[in-house]
Amino acid sequence: MLVLVANLGSTSFKYRLFEMTDDGALDDIQNARCLAKGAVERIGDAESHCTVEIGDWSDQLTMAVPDHGVAVEACLKQLTDPEHGALKDASDVAAIGFKAVHGGRLSGVFVVDELVLDAMAEMNAAAPAHNPPYIAAMRTLKERFPDLPLVAAFETDFHQTIPAARKEYAIPRQWADEFHIRKWGFHGASHRFIAYRSAEILGRKEARVISCHLGGSSSITAIENRQSVQTTMGMTPQTGLPQNNRVGDFDPFALPLILERTGLSLDEALKQLASQGGLLGLSGNSGDIRDLEQAAEAGDQGSQLALDVYVQEIRRHLGGMLVTLGGADAIVFTGGIGENDSLVRKGVCQGLSELGIELDEQANEDLRQRTNDQGEASFHGSGSKTQLWVIPTNEEVIVARQTIHALRQ
Amino acid sequence: MLVLVANLGSTSFKYRLFEMTDDGALDDIQNARCLAKGAVERIGDAESHCTVEIGDWSDQLTMAVPDHGVAVEACLKQLTDPEHGALKDASDVAAIGFKAVHGGRLSGVFVVDELVLDAMAEMNAAAPAHNPPYIAAMRTLKERFPDLPLVAAFETDFHQTIPAARKEYAIPRQWADEFHIRKWGFHGASHRFIAYRSAEILGRKEARVISCHLGGSSSITAIENRQSVQTTMGMTPQTGLPQNNRVGDFDPFALPLILERTGLSLDEALKQLASQGGLLGLSGNSGDIRDLEQAAEAGDQGSQLALDVYVQEIRRHLGGMLVTLGGADAIVFTGGIGENDSLVRKGVCQGLSELGIELDEQANEDLRQRTNDQGEASFHGSGSKTQLWVIPTNEEVIVARQTIHALRQ
Repeated sequence: MLVLVANLGSTSFKYRLFEMTDDGALDDIQNARCLAKGAVERIGDAESHCTVEIGDWSDQLTMAVPDHGVAVEACLKQLTDPEHGALKDASDVAAIGFKAVHGGRLSGVFVVDELVLDAMAEMNAAAPAHNPPYIAAMRTLKERFPDLPLVAAFETDFHQTIPAARKEYAIPRQWADEFHIRKWGFHGASHRFIAYRSAEILGRKEARVISCHLGGSSSITAIENRQSVQTTMGMTPQTGLPQNNRVGDFDPFALPLILERTGLSLDEALKQLASQGGLLGLSGNSGDIRDLEQAAEAGDQGSQLALDVYVQEIRRHLGGMLVTLGGADAIVFTGGIGENDSLVRKGVCQGLSELGIELDEQANEDLRQRTNDQGEASFHGSGSKTQLWVIPTNEEVIVARQTIHALRQ
Repeated sequence: MLVLVANLGSTSFKYRLFEMTDDGALDDIQNARCLAKGAVERIGDAESHCTVEIGDWSDQLTMAVPDHGVAVEACLKQLTDPEHGALKDASDVAAIGFKAVHGGRLSGVFVVDELVLDAMAEMNAAAPAHNPPYIAAMRTLKERFPDLPLVAAFETDFHQTIPAARKEYAIPRQWADEFHIRKWGFHGASHRFIAYRSAEILGRKEARVISCHLGGSSSITAIENRQSVQTTMGMTPQTGLPQNNRVGDFDPFALPLILERTGLSLDEALKQLASQGGLLGLSGNSGDIRDLEQAAEAGDQGSQLALDVYVQEIRRHLGGMLVTLGGADAIVFTGGIGENDSLVRKGVCQGLSELGIELDEQANEDLRQRTNDQGEASFHGSGSKTQLWVIPTNEEVIVARQTIHALRQ
């Protein structure tokens, strides 16, 4: 079965084409061959760029792409290129699977219909940057391709197994029950991949694993029996760890003081917290950890502060997961920072030998030279009770698996 | 030296009279004899009640007490009772020390002057329930007793030693620097007492201790070398653990959805979170843990949820402290719940043997029968690396020590 896995931005459409030959088991992550990948950028501009890579062949088209419907048409045109294409016919695509953000009361994987779009629209106020463009694009695609199933795999799906005691805010029950305000958690596809892959590596499905997805946005999830039992993001993807330019955990009762002093409205203040906060806000320089490490090395105190807060917040949340699990069999680092930044990994893992976590500093530093063909390597010391691993995540494979799983139900 | 330690409410004045004979060292907590305690309630009503206890003698007056100035006059009148009084003359009182809440940029212990009152007023928007009545009462007392020093010992004082990496929010630097928005922490007098007392018990000043103050309001502090290095409350006392009727950690980005659905203003929504949240909001029944345990026992699911969330949130934050300290020499429980609720203590400590924390279930349950003359007892198992203790806190002694310390500087 062929599935297009899509990542939507308000003016972009990125995709991968997967082929899978199986019965749709969610956890069969080794069974998903990526045939092609591509992107349509600058949707709505006079000139949009459509790129595709199929094996060694790549192609670039420049054309007017007024909306996401035309973007998918352009993508299908390139994928069915008579000479190099990965598809014989556009109708061979069984579905488009989307990594959708927030469905509120609908947490799971769903073939997109009006009920799904309604549930997403209910969460517009909680995910203003994500949900409205997704809804608009999905509507356009449903009109343009009425026979092609669209599947929404919500980021919150993997966290449905978190027990109520770690999911509920201490708010009036009416707000939780009627407005669906609880700790939904996000990055579900990534943490699910780490859950399945780490169980394969450890050879035990019941392992206790802490998945640290550290990248452009970051979250940590405690995993037991390949299920999420706690996560750092909450009602929205804004809480938890500080992000590149987003605040992370913050005291809402500080807002009246901010509004009083700045004259901003609540929406404006939140927008600043979600665009001028995080590592960018702390450093005053950049939200990119590579810039910060360079600047800190050169003596910039703001950049050093941003790095220090980031590491301390990871440690604080990691500790919560460690107590939840009563100890961890493995801590896994993934995402752009988790996979590539040995300084952050060292900062997070050091000084924890009394808790059974021992870093091998050399193994951590030369990790890139020691990875297997999947980019994986461990870096714990020989006496460590907890294994430390870098495992590159693969959200697209999970969405592909979720998509055929949903189609077959 | 005689010091009156005061706890102000908007319509109440509670106090203890301490005698201390020393050079004002902050940590000399065994050197503070409580001579008397009392309270003036219903200030502003037609009839106020003034009670005092001095040794075995107690007295109750009913009179009109229009403001806090008259309240202190009534208190001094009772304390100088010719037959039973603890004071020969009202002028023997060297100062009144206040456990003040939020001084923003002024974090420490200060003789109250206009600059101190201004700093408190700047924080009115962040501590609307606490700061305005304190400021009003202090102004009244300054007018009525111009020669009596008033000393404000801010709750944030003990947390000044927290390093920036665990104190700063990931917000624009201007908001931190100009509006003083950072994780100030509260319950400072209580955590300071536990820091000093646990070091005495453990016989080591450099011990790593996690102080769990669990009561009408709750917070946890990581202590190293008798100094705070991390705490759960943030810019305001609303964040961190869920409280009896206050929310604790919450996602500010959920607020637009709440305002959209309820029609409440931001201030109204925050007021609800600070009065209809916490254990009360979770259970829908009560914010009192004793009620909740009784109702849960009888099968009430909301009450069980409230208890479960409370314990899970304590565990989550405890884990953060454990990683910050790299392991703990002792975990101390204090406050009404911490000292008296064996179920909560058990819930928090169980299943952590891999992390070096072993509960002695029997010792925990019959702890009340095993306390020393200060109400202290341990309840860890013999193999536990981390000692577990109940230590009753004594915030008033700390404020008394802080007050003479401030007077002598």
